[in-house]
Amino acid sequence: MVIVMKDSASEGMVQAVCEKLEAHGFQVHKVVGVNQTILGGIGDIRGVDLREFEVMEGVYEVLRITEPYKLASRAFHPENTVVEVGEASFGGEMVTVCAGPCSVESEEQLFTIAREVKKCGAKVLRAGAFKPRTSPYAFQGLGEKGLQLMQQVGAELSIATVSEVMEIGQLDLMLRYIDIIQVGARNMQNFALLRELGHIRKPVLLKRGLSATIEELLMAAEYIMSGGNYNVILCERGIRTFETYTRNTMDISAIPVTQKHSHLPIIADPSHGTGRRDKVAPMARAAVAAGANGLIIEVHHDPDHALSDGAQSIYPQQFMRLMEELRMIAWAIGKRI
Amino acid sequence: MVIVMKDSASEGMVQAVCEKLEAHGFQVHKVVGVNQTILGGIGDIRGVDLREFEVMEGVYEVLRITEPYKLASRAFHPENTVVEVGEASFGGEMVTVCAGPCSVESEEQLFTIAREVKKCGAKVLRAGAFKPRTSPYAFQGLGEKGLQLMQQVGAELSIATVSEVMEIGQLDLMLRYIDIIQVGARNMQNFALLRELGHIRKPVLLKRGLSATIEELLMAAEYIMSGGNYNVILCERGIRTFETYTRNTMDISAIPVTQKHSHLPIIADPSHGTGRRDKVAPMARAAVAAGANGLIIEVHHDPDHALSDGAQSIYPQQFMRLMEELRMIAWAIGKRI
Amino acid sequence: MVIVMKDSASEGMVQAVCEKLEAHGFQVHKVVGVNQTILGGIGDIRGVDLREFEVMEGVYEVLRITEPYKLASRAFHPENTVVEVGEASFGGEMVTVCAGPCSVESEEQLFTIAREVKKCGAKVLRAGAFKPRTSPYAFQGLGEKGLQLMQQVGAELSIATVSEVMEIGQLDLMLRYIDIIQVGARNMQNFALLRELGHIRKPVLLKRGLSATIEELLMAAEYIMSGGNYNVILCERGIRTFETYTRNTMDISAIPVTQKHSHLPIIADPSHGTGRRDKVAPMARAAVAAGANGLIIEVHHDPDHALSDGAQSIYPQQFMRLMEELRMIAWAIGKRI
Amino acid sequence: MVIVMKDSASEGMVQAVCEKLEAHGFQVHKVVGVNQTILGGIGDIRGVDLREFEVMEGVYEVLRITEPYKLASRAFHPENTVVEVGEASFGGEMVTVCAGPCSVESEEQLFTIAREVKKCGAKVLRAGAFKPRTSPYAFQGLGEKGLQLMQQVGAELSIATVSEVMEIGQLDLMLRYIDIIQVGARNMQNFALLRELGHIRKPVLLKRGLSATIEELLMAAEYIMSGGNYNVILCERGIRTFETYTRNTMDISAIPVTQKHSHLPIIADPSHGTGRRDKVAPMARAAVAAGANGLIIEVHHDPDHALSDGAQSIYPQQFMRLMEELRMIAWAIGKRI
Repeated sequence: MVIVMKDSASEGMVQAVCEKLEAHGFQVHKVVGVNQTILGGIGDIRGVDLREFEVMEGVYEVLRITEPYKLASRAFHPENTVVEVGEASFGGEMVTVCAGPCSVESEEQLFTIAREVKKCGAKVLRAGAFKPRTSPYAFQGLGEKGLQLMQQVGAELSIATVSEVMEIGQLDLMLRYIDIIQVGARNMQNFALLRELGHIRKPVLLKRGLSATIEELLMAAEYIMSGGNYNVILCERGIRTFETYTRNTMDISAIPVTQKHSHLPIIADPSHGTGRRDKVAPMARAAVAAGANGLIIEVHHDPDHALSDGAQSIYPQQFMRLMEELRMIAWAIGKRI
Repeated sequence: MVIVMKDSASEGMVQAVCEKLEAHGFQVHKVVGVNQTILGGIGDIRGVDLREFEVMEGVYEVLRITEPYKLASRAFHPENTVVEVGEASFGGEMVTVCAGPCSVESEEQLFTIAREVKKCGAKVLRAGAFKPRTSPYAFQGLGEKGLQLMQQVGAELSIATVSEVMEIGQLDLMLRYIDIIQVGARNMQNFALLRELGHIRKPVLLKRGLSATIEELLMAAEYIMSGGNYNVILCERGIRTFETYTRNTMDISAIPVTQKHSHLPIIADPSHGTGRRDKVAPMARAAVAAGANGLIIEVHHDPDHALSDGAQSIYPQQFMRLMEELRMIAWAIGKRI
Repeated sequence: MVIVMKDSASEGMVQAVCEKLEAHGFQVHKVVGVNQTILGGIGDIRGVDLREFEVMEGVYEVLRITEPYKLASRAFHPENTVVEVGEASFGGEMVTVCAGPCSVESEEQLFTIAREVKKCGAKVLRAGAFKPRTSPYAFQGLGEKGLQLMQQVGAELSIATVSEVMEIGQLDLMLRYIDIIQVGARNMQNFALLRELGHIRKPVLLKRGLSATIEELLMAAEYIMSGGNYNVILCERGIRTFETYTRNTMDISAIPVTQKHSHLPIIADPSHGTGRRDKVAPMARAAVAAGANGLIIEVHHDPDHALSDGAQSIYPQQFMRLMEELRMIAWAIGKRI
Repeated sequence: MVIVMKDSASEGMVQAVCEKLEAHGFQVHKVVGVNQTILGGIGDIRGVDLREFEVMEGVYEVLRITEPYKLASRAFHPENTVVEVGEASFGGEMVTVCAGPCSVESEEQLFTIAREVKKCGAKVLRAGAFKPRTSPYAFQGLGEKGLQLMQQVGAELSIATVSEVMEIGQLDLMLRYIDIIQVGARNMQNFALLRELGHIRKPVLLKRGLSATIEELLMAAEYIMSGGNYNVILCERGIRTFETYTRNTMDISAIPVTQKHSHLPIIADPSHGTGRRDKVAPMARAAVAAGANGLIIEVHHDPDHALSDGAQSIYPQQFMRLMEELRMIAWAIGKRI
């Protein structure tokens, strides 16, 4: 941490800051310039609220010089983490695609779609059993029945599964049936849930919150990892900005930025990132071109009658064509699908 | 709902949309202009995903013409809702101030601060027992012990209490000890929690999420109200913007806007809204001047040693002076503290 | 335009709105539902301030049902506009790359870089002669001397040129030397300048403002086009969001969205969009994968000594490799470079 | 400036950064921790692009430790600047209100409104003669005729005047007729215009850009001041956020933040800040309660027939009542109107 003192700071004020730094276990270095004194505090800032120093008398500014996360940081773990689930692998040279309907609706629906996406090259089947709907009046998911169908279809077709947990109470159930536990954007900072996910031994797919910075996403991953579960897959799914033509603004640059700061794999969700069927393919291609380790895409064979998110689901034939384009793009940057 | 067809839409496309509208129970009115056909769908749009219409062939744009919430809407309930808890009342002519430390730290700490804030005119004691910290390495709160202290101090000083619930599992415990259950900004769209809060009979203080629109805040209130609990107090606490000098940008205009669209009381949290002690007083004054029904403010007698958020807690003497200023401001606009 | 009346609106209020609509030349259609009256106004809303209706008594909401621009709209002009300058063409099946240094610094510098980028396949040479610097203490560009060098290098290497105009006073000078006149993000709503650009006969490269919506970008294009100059090339270069790891957030989804709403070509500027050399290549690839009609990229042979923006300029050998990747990506989606 | 080196940085990389710092005239201090080397560069960073250091090998992060502006900074000039124009004064203990119509429409209109606002206590008459309209099809202002009317009314009623300059070409004309030259939000970073304003001897009212940070606002002021004109009045008028219920989000906290960092006066524009008549009064009160040095408000006696911005203009009787409320609020915080 670096603390910049005001020009007008007295010797006593500087001293008080040094003492507080030392009280927090920092080793203090003092740089005295012509107008300004700068204090360098070398030590562990995790758990320290920098604002405590900011409000001290004579302090001009407090600057963090290390990331607030460690386990998630590439500085701490320079090699890419590769998360493996069945045939799927995230973080290596493969671009791994998860696909499926927004919600499990019926056995037939799930089988139909799962067969299609697997045929096209998807390695993970996605579908929700518990749906976090913004309206209390909308379809809320099939619950356990949905999870059972996921397991059944996954086993029959030899495809890994991913589904979203909405609260701690659902976790045991999820673990019984599902391979990858997804944390939705709205739960990215549900710290109680993250702590529980640190104790499980299945991979976690952690979606970036709608207004979360990349640093906060990595802090959320740190929460999980600090409990001992290192199998975290990050996911960019759009942030909230002033633009209204699109539901969210997909932050494609988050992909290379995250890969620079962290060793964890990051995939992209162009379905939620755009909210519109006709934008899914261009944004899926953009994500892969930018280096994403994978994608998660909503596909439905009859989106007009889907019980949720039909408007952002693509048709199986659109998915097939998209996968062909993605194969060439992946190849252009030295990856494979 | 209004659906605007493209200039190029065929008669068949218009027909398909009409049929889908009718299938959803809407009464359809067709306006045929020289270039454009407009369809008016009169009916209940709650639970309908407008994007289903947006992706239909020939549709240019779909416009909602009613709010997606009803119970929370002033159109539905023109009179102000007044939430009463002990001596405190939110939504009437009083400006009601909740104050106290960020966290319960000890009996002595809580008594000291509670006495001070009550003396100055606070009607509700605030303090946290479960703390949602962004870092897994920071102080996490006293838990049940903290709740017991809240109850004890509240009873002894005859002051109502408010504290934050972080997850459903804590709710029973909270209800035993606390008068007003607070939902933090990160949980504003934790729909499972909101649904539970619909079934309790204590008031809920619902904070606006960091990137939640006012409409989403009112939808979250609707979730609670749809379960039967109408005692919801809204709270503006700052939104995330591009500005970095302040931690968040307090959206003071949300106060009059919310009051126009909803009958629910809305208070402001200048402590989290700014994150800095020296900005608390100006923003508290601004909120009251804009018509807020109350405030929630962090006060600590020894913020340098507070276990959390010391930097945004004001001193008791600052609080006393602020309360005097607020009294005059309230009076200027026909209210009282 | 659609005007939704409040449930409580009286017959007189509805009448007043109808009259105001008619006074503005709209043909009025009235839809009377059980609770609500909806008025459809068919006519030209350009130049009408919708808020005039919003503040009328009894009005609940006013909804625009047509875009506020016409000449720039795909509805008005369904075919893609193709802007041609020398060998370069924007809007057809080619992905056209503009490249060069941030600023013209010297004849030797410009020649060196121009030769490199042309060799790699760039069709337009970019460089600034007037620099809009945020600091009054930074390098401000070579001025007319820089423009002359642009013309000289362009002629000698047979490559078209693009450079930024900062104010109306510079326009005549620019027109004498430069092929494509660039409007920077900060000038996107400099309406006086846009009006002048409507009267010239050279193509305009119009950059999206830092906080401009796509609609505002198209309105700015409309300003130019309404003067008679239809050769407008749009450019996405990053918007301002809460994220701070990147200078701006490049809105890749703006590319397909703009192409849906407008017939004008749109290119992307990954150099300003990210502000960092190591993010230029992934974002350039993402833009092309999303369907951009071209790119504008800063390249410098010695960025450590560049007089401006060295940190976001890539090396010629990085540019060469990027162009190879882009060729394959363009091919994957049926385009060519 | 502080440069944090990566853990893995070699001695040579550290050396290269030190040399570059020295080449820019910085005095270098090296702090060697167990894992990290930190370099403190003491010197003048104005005009230095920090990213040049960020992209050097071995550099982890570059932190600015001084503000990029100097003349506008309170560190440089601790006393408040008081800008005086006729009877109006900005920056002292007075809260100074500018009021008037959006546009000059006619002699009668201007006289009528000016008389009303002066009677209520406004000290400056505002009105536009050149209007920056987002639509090329909207009313563009009376031009010089409007400026003449401003001068005439100002002289007759002994009230100072403020009006907006849209481009350099209009400046001479403005100076002939108007007391305070206003720079609109869209021109806040029109550096060519700012430079010209540095050479005039009339006060400048500088509005914050829609997506400008407070730091950028102060940098824009610095541009003007670096030319020798120190009479700059800042103005908060709303920033662009994700919220759509209001046109912009008025950043009330910018008022105390700016006053902390700068000695320049700052006023607020609740008319543009909200865009809606019914929000003007609450936000005007909030701004004054937060410590604003003044306000600029649109008032029109017949807003239904105003040629621009009628929807955000308040009626004279609303203005009178607002002024009474503001007087009490100002008094509550030790100021006067």
